[in-house]
Amino acid sequence: MNYQHILDEIYDEIQPELMRGKVADYIPALAEVKKGQFAMTLTLEDGSVYSVGESKKAFSIQSISKVFTFTLALDIYASELYKRVGVEPSGNPFNSLVQLEYENGIPRNPFINAGAIAITDSLISYYKDEDRALDVIMNFIREISANPQLSFNKTVADSEMEYGDRNLALARLMKSFGNFENDVPGSVMTYSRHCAITMNTEELSRAMLFLAFGGTDPVLGKEIVSASKAKRINAVMLTCGHYDASGEFAFYVGLPAKSGVGGGIVATVPGLMSIAVWSPGLNKYGNSHAGTLALEKFTTKTGLSIF
Amino acid sequence: MNYQHILDEIYDEIQPELMRGKVADYIPALAEVKKGQFAMTLTLEDGSVYSVGESKKAFSIQSISKVFTFTLALDIYASELYKRVGVEPSGNPFNSLVQLEYENGIPRNPFINAGAIAITDSLISYYKDEDRALDVIMNFIREISANPQLSFNKTVADSEMEYGDRNLALARLMKSFGNFENDVPGSVMTYSRHCAITMNTEELSRAMLFLAFGGTDPVLGKEIVSASKAKRINAVMLTCGHYDASGEFAFYVGLPAKSGVGGGIVATVPGLMSIAVWSPGLNKYGNSHAGTLALEKFTTKTGLSIF
Amino acid sequence: MNYQHILDEIYDEIQPELMRGKVADYIPALAEVKKGQFAMTLTLEDGSVYSVGESKKAFSIQSISKVFTFTLALDIYASELYKRVGVEPSGNPFNSLVQLEYENGIPRNPFINAGAIAITDSLISYYKDEDRALDVIMNFIREISANPQLSFNKTVADSEMEYGDRNLALARLMKSFGNFENDVPGSVMTYSRHCAITMNTEELSRAMLFLAFGGTDPVLGKEIVSASKAKRINAVMLTCGHYDASGEFAFYVGLPAKSGVGGGIVATVPGLMSIAVWSPGLNKYGNSHAGTLALEKFTTKTGLSIF
Amino acid sequence: MNYQHILDEIYDEIQPELMRGKVADYIPALAEVKKGQFAMTLTLEDGSVYSVGESKKAFSIQSISKVFTFTLALDIYASELYKRVGVEPSGNPFNSLVQLEYENGIPRNPFINAGAIAITDSLISYYKDEDRALDVIMNFIREISANPQLSFNKTVADSEMEYGDRNLALARLMKSFGNFENDVPGSVMTYSRHCAITMNTEELSRAMLFLAFGGTDPVLGKEIVSASKAKRINAVMLTCGHYDASGEFAFYVGLPAKSGVGGGIVATVPGLMSIAVWSPGLNKYGNSHAGTLALEKFTTKTGLSIF
Repeated sequence: MNYQHILDEIYDEIQPELMRGKVADYIPALAEVKKGQFAMTLTLEDGSVYSVGESKKAFSIQSISKVFTFTLALDIYASELYKRVGVEPSGNPFNSLVQLEYENGIPRNPFINAGAIAITDSLISYYKDEDRALDVIMNFIREISANPQLSFNKTVADSEMEYGDRNLALARLMKSFGNFENDVPGSVMTYSRHCAITMNTEELSRAMLFLAFGGTDPVLGKEIVSASKAKRINAVMLTCGHYDASGEFAFYVGLPAKSGVGGGIVATVPGLMSIAVWSPGLNKYGNSHAGTLALEKFTTKTGLSIF
Repeated sequence: MNYQHILDEIYDEIQPELMRGKVADYIPALAEVKKGQFAMTLTLEDGSVYSVGESKKAFSIQSISKVFTFTLALDIYASELYKRVGVEPSGNPFNSLVQLEYENGIPRNPFINAGAIAITDSLISYYKDEDRALDVIMNFIREISANPQLSFNKTVADSEMEYGDRNLALARLMKSFGNFENDVPGSVMTYSRHCAITMNTEELSRAMLFLAFGGTDPVLGKEIVSASKAKRINAVMLTCGHYDASGEFAFYVGLPAKSGVGGGIVATVPGLMSIAVWSPGLNKYGNSHAGTLALEKFTTKTGLSIF
Repeated sequence: MNYQHILDEIYDEIQPELMRGKVADYIPALAEVKKGQFAMTLTLEDGSVYSVGESKKAFSIQSISKVFTFTLALDIYASELYKRVGVEPSGNPFNSLVQLEYENGIPRNPFINAGAIAITDSLISYYKDEDRALDVIMNFIREISANPQLSFNKTVADSEMEYGDRNLALARLMKSFGNFENDVPGSVMTYSRHCAITMNTEELSRAMLFLAFGGTDPVLGKEIVSASKAKRINAVMLTCGHYDASGEFAFYVGLPAKSGVGGGIVATVPGLMSIAVWSPGLNKYGNSHAGTLALEKFTTKTGLSIF
Repeated sequence: MNYQHILDEIYDEIQPELMRGKVADYIPALAEVKKGQFAMTLTLEDGSVYSVGESKKAFSIQSISKVFTFTLALDIYASELYKRVGVEPSGNPFNSLVQLEYENGIPRNPFINAGAIAITDSLISYYKDEDRALDVIMNFIREISANPQLSFNKTVADSEMEYGDRNLALARLMKSFGNFENDVPGSVMTYSRHCAITMNTEELSRAMLFLAFGGTDPVLGKEIVSASKAKRINAVMLTCGHYDASGEFAFYVGLPAKSGVGGGIVATVPGLMSIAVWSPGLNKYGNSHAGTLALEKFTTKTGLSIF
């Protein structure tokens, strides 16, 4: 297939959609991002890259970072992790406390906020220190994205904390159920920092390559996680990767993927490629409007899908 | 791969699990089924079949029938169908009214009871008559399972109605929201009847072949639904096929599949084969205990998975 | 106190409020009632009556009938009744199925729809027959209202059934939990009929006299229920009489009272008088807007309150 | 009536109940309290006192303090207060976050934890300082209880904070909705401190006198709050004073009352007397088992009730 040609077609067709949706505005630092921007990158097994749009422009990866922290925690804790975080779709908004209360402080999955905060807490426990845990997370993403300079945006992270009462409430509620081990504000700060990492679609697509290829980064030639764990991470992306629009995403796009409110979406075509797309206007579920459409167009045009 | 050998291995390994779990006992007709039984069948593109266990013994397909009625309704109504039934995982038990009340009588997906009853109602509307709708459903399943004698168990269907207050309540609640078109008891009776169809794993596996091969039954050489619709049905099986254990099933097994409280599970390996497994002992989510394990063993042994 | 003078004052002051609110429109028969109407009647221990407005104009008593059926059932079953219906405020809308599902089919109290339908079902069980139960209910209200001609409006009752899917769903859900004994449609019909009784404020005020005077109708000189049960019925009116505005009503008015969507409200001043008020415009909670205000004015002007 | 005789009777009859129920054990400092203890005090308009049991033994008043903080806040803010806290029964456990999430951070009433914490926050805002607010609360209770030495138990307050994650989560969730003004941990600490005040039944009964007599303390001859506000506080005690057993308490006892997990209950007989009772064994709703029974016996024996 001529991937560049397909990307170019998508780029043309997506133009009328770029001003639609609403940029995340729950924190000022994100609200400043301009609509109308778009980028899409495919990375193949040999590391070759096809891009369109502003693929070198970094944005806030936000919830996409949850894929990387889940990977680290699953590698460390294996099945022990499920005592703290489930793998079921929640059927509720990403920041809901309701289910957490009904289900004794065990978050449904690692991709809703409560679950991702519990994952960060588990990494802090393992690495014994907030800063060290953050370093490990950062270095891991630097390695798999092949960008050793990667950093988080301090303004965004601070802003996230300033408006982070809901996240603090989630962590506090988990603590009340005995499902939290470290300092609440410190852990939520660490979480906010890894959400505030900035990356472009080329870096993100590259970083997802190991999940498209059975846990082994084919360019580095290095096993990041076992094949079995890679499959499971893909499975959770498929069932839980788009908040309460995960079913629709599986239905219309049909690829394991994870979105972030910064407008990014990463996806894998197992055995073939990893994909990153970015466009900051969000649909009502908090997923990139044009990004979702672009991926739908991609699977329609290529016939690629896991189903 | 030597599929027969793999099935034989699974058959051996699964023996200690066959008496575990609990046979569905909400109606007397199902409670009589004996634990300890097991069957598993694979069907390949050319119609060749690999079986193990009691693969010719018919059982009540129950919720597996929802795959077939959803297929029929999606073919008829296409995207119009989503006005009545969603495609999101529910995060709630299969017979819950709670979400239905909060979400204005629109069931989350076609595989929870409310959704499947709404699908049956839509088929009755299209075929203008309960009996005719049931005939169409029966004949469709007869065709794709290559068994023109297929029928439903009247005792089970009647028993289902006798204990069917929850289903009647679901239908009635949908009607109160304007999301029900036909007679409530008559529609629920039609639903109970297609749930009471009896099939064995060879027939079920055969009947799922079109979903493993892009909507076209490769043996009949006939397009049952478009490739795009087939992918979407597989997607809904993956995200919603196992009630509130769908995430776990995707995580551990990694195949689109649908279970029934009769102990059956059907699954597809897109492009490769369809699978049916049966063992009547259910786990706490209402899915076959040994059937789920057998599928997990199968994907582990073969490395097959959509992820 | 010069009660007539106080009523006249209220009548003047309430005029600007009479066109506010919204007439119940969930069934056509009720939607035809004109706004702008108002009546209020006080009945003292000796049967003397003070009225203002259209106190001889009959209206649909709707949920007010639940006070009378609860009285009958409490008299028959005493504490046995609480196995089927609780006495707690629900904190939810009057026709919600959510709590009923979470709490195993036991309605929170006898004044939400589910509870009142369960009460009607219990009366049918006791009197062995829907018609006989309805006769007993009708004759009871005829006796205490001193109007042997009292009847229900068949058009309203039929209309209630025609749009009664929610009530049928509630009854069906209770049946699925084993908390329903008789035919579902027949019981809901009986319930719809006693809700469709038409009375004016003079009759309603008179009928409530026994609850203002410790269970004994002081005019008839007849004990209707024991003093202890009368207190308890008043208590349930106070905590549950106005759906999810019961707390506000207790807070602003401070009297045991029960409202109906026909625009009526009945109240007691224990040891002193019973009150009925009517004005068809409803506030957002489904309680008479002007009726609630008139009662608030009454307790403010007279200083009467149970607190 | 011979109140002392009635109290003596109750004291005899209640003995077999004193070891039942379960002492609050969510914090170690409360778990040490011994079961088997009981005290009851009535205070009449002239300040005369009738007591039985250990009426001079102080205990942790816990949620009873919410009556006093609500009184102060209602006096300051009048109807403005309802923008922050409602007056409806919640129908949910006292520390639930669910309703708070569904209802945009506005607690249902001032007697559930979220509501009481919001009230404390409003007092801190008014008095500009946590310490000053606590001083005002303490001095207010000292004045109306006629004990200038009253203090809070620092061990209990600290223990409350140590296990106070749920309360911190509630405050944090309100803050996320914009319904919290001051420092979260500091406000919850202030709340924990006023909950940790220790009083005996003589002091508590005395402190409630103003609520039994229209807002004016008849002994001090001083208006504490207006008559209208006193009625409203009584109304909220009746509808919301016993968590999700408020309806049952109104039903069986029939008096405005407020319980605390320390085993205390305060009640008013409007126009006649105030009552305090204490026994540390709690029923399943978290209200004193023997205390509730003693009050039920009291209203049965005396015929006193607001209904």
